[in-house]
Amino acid sequence: MSKLYSHSAHEVLKTQLESVVEEVKNKTPPRFRIRIRSLNNTVYDEKHRMLVLGNKALERRFNSIAEVRAFMQTCLMSRAIYDALKGGDHPTIRDLYYYALHTIEKTNIESFNGQDESDAIIQDIEVLTGLLREDMGVVADSRGSIVGNIVLESKGNKIDCSRLGIGSFSIPSLCDQLRINSVDAEYVLVIEKDAIFQRLNDLEYWRKNKCILVTGRGQPDRATRRMARRLIDEFKLPMYVLTDADPYGWYIYSTYKAGSVSLSYESFRLACPEASFLGMSMSDIEKYDIPKDHLIKASDMDIKRAKELLYVDEKTGQARYPWFAESAKWNKEIKSFLRKKLKAEIESKSAHGFRFLSDVYLPEKISTRDFIN
Amino acid sequence: MSKLYSHSAHEVLKTQLESVVEEVKNKTPPRFRIRIRSLNNTVYDEKHRMLVLGNKALERRFNSIAEVRAFMQTCLMSRAIYDALKGGDHPTIRDLYYYALHTIEKTNIESFNGQDESDAIIQDIEVLTGLLREDMGVVADSRGSIVGNIVLESKGNKIDCSRLGIGSFSIPSLCDQLRINSVDAEYVLVIEKDAIFQRLNDLEYWRKNKCILVTGRGQPDRATRRMARRLIDEFKLPMYVLTDADPYGWYIYSTYKAGSVSLSYESFRLACPEASFLGMSMSDIEKYDIPKDHLIKASDMDIKRAKELLYVDEKTGQARYPWFAESAKWNKEIKSFLRKKLKAEIESKSAHGFRFLSDVYLPEKISTRDFIN
Repeated sequence: MSKLYSHSAHEVLKTQLESVVEEVKNKTPPRFRIRIRSLNNTVYDEKHRMLVLGNKALERRFNSIAEVRAFMQTCLMSRAIYDALKGGDHPTIRDLYYYALHTIEKTNIESFNGQDESDAIIQDIEVLTGLLREDMGVVADSRGSIVGNIVLESKGNKIDCSRLGIGSFSIPSLCDQLRINSVDAEYVLVIEKDAIFQRLNDLEYWRKNKCILVTGRGQPDRATRRMARRLIDEFKLPMYVLTDADPYGWYIYSTYKAGSVSLSYESFRLACPEASFLGMSMSDIEKYDIPKDHLIKASDMDIKRAKELLYVDEKTGQARYPWFAESAKWNKEIKSFLRKKLKAEIESKSAHGFRFLSDVYLPEKISTRDFIN
Repeated sequence: MSKLYSHSAHEVLKTQLESVVEEVKNKTPPRFRIRIRSLNNTVYDEKHRMLVLGNKALERRFNSIAEVRAFMQTCLMSRAIYDALKGGDHPTIRDLYYYALHTIEKTNIESFNGQDESDAIIQDIEVLTGLLREDMGVVADSRGSIVGNIVLESKGNKIDCSRLGIGSFSIPSLCDQLRINSVDAEYVLVIEKDAIFQRLNDLEYWRKNKCILVTGRGQPDRATRRMARRLIDEFKLPMYVLTDADPYGWYIYSTYKAGSVSLSYESFRLACPEASFLGMSMSDIEKYDIPKDHLIKASDMDIKRAKELLYVDEKTGQARYPWFAESAKWNKEIKSFLRKKLKAEIESKSAHGFRFLSDVYLPEKISTRDFIN
């Protein structure tokens, strides 16, 4: 089992827990100080161009009736993770829940009332220690794939992602334990939809265009975002995002680029502020002559979401999504959508033939740098 | 691009369409005869132990006001698929929709009112021609993964799934285009949950226990089911299914084993009647001493689903799911669930340590053949 991170995580967690022991020894009531994971403690870091967690913190004290339960849960879950690290284990978040779950002695009270509670405590421990779930070797469901001119290494195996035929490499939850050995690519193309990813792989788009293809199959999981970020960090590759022309697609792009509110404490390792939106854009509809009957009527939910992306608080002047609301190009894009009330799927370009996407649209958009960012 | 199937598919489709031309020449009104894809034309084939499509068919006639639209759609979509096959293309189902979509000349009527209509027509063409979507090279989203002692081949590349480290191989939509070169395994373990699949891969369970691990990430897609079926057909491997102890898990097992109503016309290549349910079973709860507080209260929906699995029509004596209702072991299992009204997750075994699943539970269940089937 790979242990790239587990040694230091083990030490960090131990130090954190020892401070509790110290407090008890000093007869100070022990407590944890944890930054609050909530919308109103999530701020846009203009310098780094991503959502980050603010500095508002809560205390979780042992000697408070209201807080002692969460205090206990934080201790129990830290202990479970510590045990796993010591044993060289990589449990799932569900494993940790069941490991830490028990009826408290001489009561009929459970240590956790369900997995929502334990998942939240795991996130608190991430914020408390600065260790991410992945650093602590904790596994969760993942669903991304990668293919193209990139060689990975894991447990002594070299995995050449240009030699997987019509298949691809499933990005594992603990993707930081993969070494990226080499890359022979000019950019990373991140694709919303798996079927299009498979189609471009089948056509060996990545070989002809010297790139790497990644899909997160819709809203990306942590591992897919981390993989994209590593390619930017370690190989300085530009990253282009390909989604449908609709608010759902824009939101996927937004998650890759600036992070999400619920995981803002993770942005520094997941967000890719360098990412550009390749398309499909509203102006592509005219530029590439997509027939009118190939467009889809926007739903009320689409309209509502699009308006949110441009929302600016009148009192504070603060945009909810500054990377949309403060960008002239995005304003044009989203307002065009709100005017036309029409959306378009990537595949609508198949009106011009099955290879229009791979042979005309993508190379042209990339060579002319026709992006929104 | 691999073309294992496309030549013959091309011929079959051509022959089918030529019969329409023949009919026109003979001044017979052209028509398609297509077996009906519906619950009441889905039957359980006792000999092959799977759901199959019955013989009730409908006619789709050119000279019927009620049927001419569907007739036209069947022609248009057949033509789109034919064009793709001729061009050596593997379009997605969405690509086909947009390719075949247009406003009918001199009207304002669209050839398809949305993708639901075109998806249904693609399924009709599968039934009509006996060619499956995959035979016709049509790609859709997929989400399964495989790892272990198996070597695949695709486009001249050998893919050794025992050399992928903590990652795995994403099973592509057109998985019949993969060649399975060799297998050094005694069984296939199909796992409901991706995180458990990753965990067992991390522990190299497949190496220690000489097997192949597959996950469909919940309800499996066609490609994952096809891959499992090929391992049974081509290598005579037994297949064990690992899910939670709840009606949702049983239904996943059921889909692998006997097929689904909506895809009953596909069962002959997807269903695995040889599959055994490994667990987690209701009796495992006592046998493996899962603490009471590690069980989850069943919801009303769970109870309703469990009752459906045992449902037998009073008039006809016909079970809806004969592989459950007519099995003594499954009756015991499901009735135990209905009595206790409790369900259990696979991970609940982590109460006994993080490696209880891999080192005790799975090897013991398999060596004692403690299955339900």
